[in-house]
Amino acid sequence: MTTTSTHQTEITADPDVPLVRITREFDAPPAKVVRAHTDPELVAQWLGPRGTEMRVDHFDCRTGGSYRYVHTSDGVEYAFRGCFHEVRPSKLIVQTFTFEGFPEGVALERLVLEDLGDGRTRLTSTSLVDSFEGRDAMIASGMDVGIREGYERLDDLLAR
Amino acid sequence: MTTTSTHQTEITADPDVPLVRITREFDAPPAKVVRAHTDPELVAQWLGPRGTEMRVDHFDCRTGGSYRYVHTSDGVEYAFRGCFHEVRPSKLIVQTFTFEGFPEGVALERLVLEDLGDGRTRLTSTSLVDSFEGRDAMIASGMDVGIREGYERLDDLLAR
Repeated sequence: MTTTSTHQTEITADPDVPLVRITREFDAPPAKVVRAHTDPELVAQWLGPRGTEMRVDHFDCRTGGSYRYVHTSDGVEYAFRGCFHEVRPSKLIVQTFTFEGFPEGVALERLVLEDLGDGRTRLTSTSLVDSFEGRDAMIASGMDVGIREGYERLDDLLAR
Repeated sequence: MTTTSTHQTEITADPDVPLVRITREFDAPPAKVVRAHTDPELVAQWLGPRGTEMRVDHFDCRTGGSYRYVHTSDGVEYAFRGCFHEVRPSKLIVQTFTFEGFPEGVALERLVLEDLGDGRTRLTSTSLVDSFEGRDAMIASGMDVGIREGYERLDDLLAR
């Protein structure tokens, strides 16, 4: 298994609102990139940092659906859950997100896929929370490592 | 039918984040106030400004559920929908909210109920969006009238 892409994952903190913005290109068309986000069997193969095992409790990726999954890393379990506000095939996923270890924290996430042509896709993901402290703590938690490694694993999955 | 309460509805725009905060007291215990938010037959009797007819498309107010309803006012229909991120009985409802006339706009809403004793409840509701422009447009749209009148209708419902 080889990594076929060296695309950079750009993670920026918005200066005006408590939001993190992530952009990343993939060498695959939007329909394929979106399927890797909506099909739980595929999601489990790439979401999270390298070495993560993912167990899907439920994952009903449609408008009005919900999800819960558990990551295991070095024997420690981390559970995440939320609901899908809107799923527009090949275009957009709007969902909520909570790490169950900090149940008061809820992020509103928006994933947008842009067709760049030639079988390429630009993904833009935003994560909005209700305070700058919460946003900055999220960034300081090492989320960037998990996101970058996850997208490298997704590159591998898309290249298969 | 008489209004038994003259409680003020306080609506404030947060200075730091694009969030609206609403606080309101009710002369009813939390369990009763929350039931008026979770039982669609009750919700339809108070949500929205006076003179609004509400038709519930679906309203599954539990963690991971979703909702859609249509308000009719002066013959014009306004549809709203979202998903329920978390519902903690008598305590908390976290949900998303979209007016279908502006489908790109999504708010993350958090409703917290506090037992004040003596059969009284303080409700705090926050609505978070991703820009100050969007937040200020929401306030300028006359949402305050709908909220104030809705809570007066809720007073009446709770007094029955």
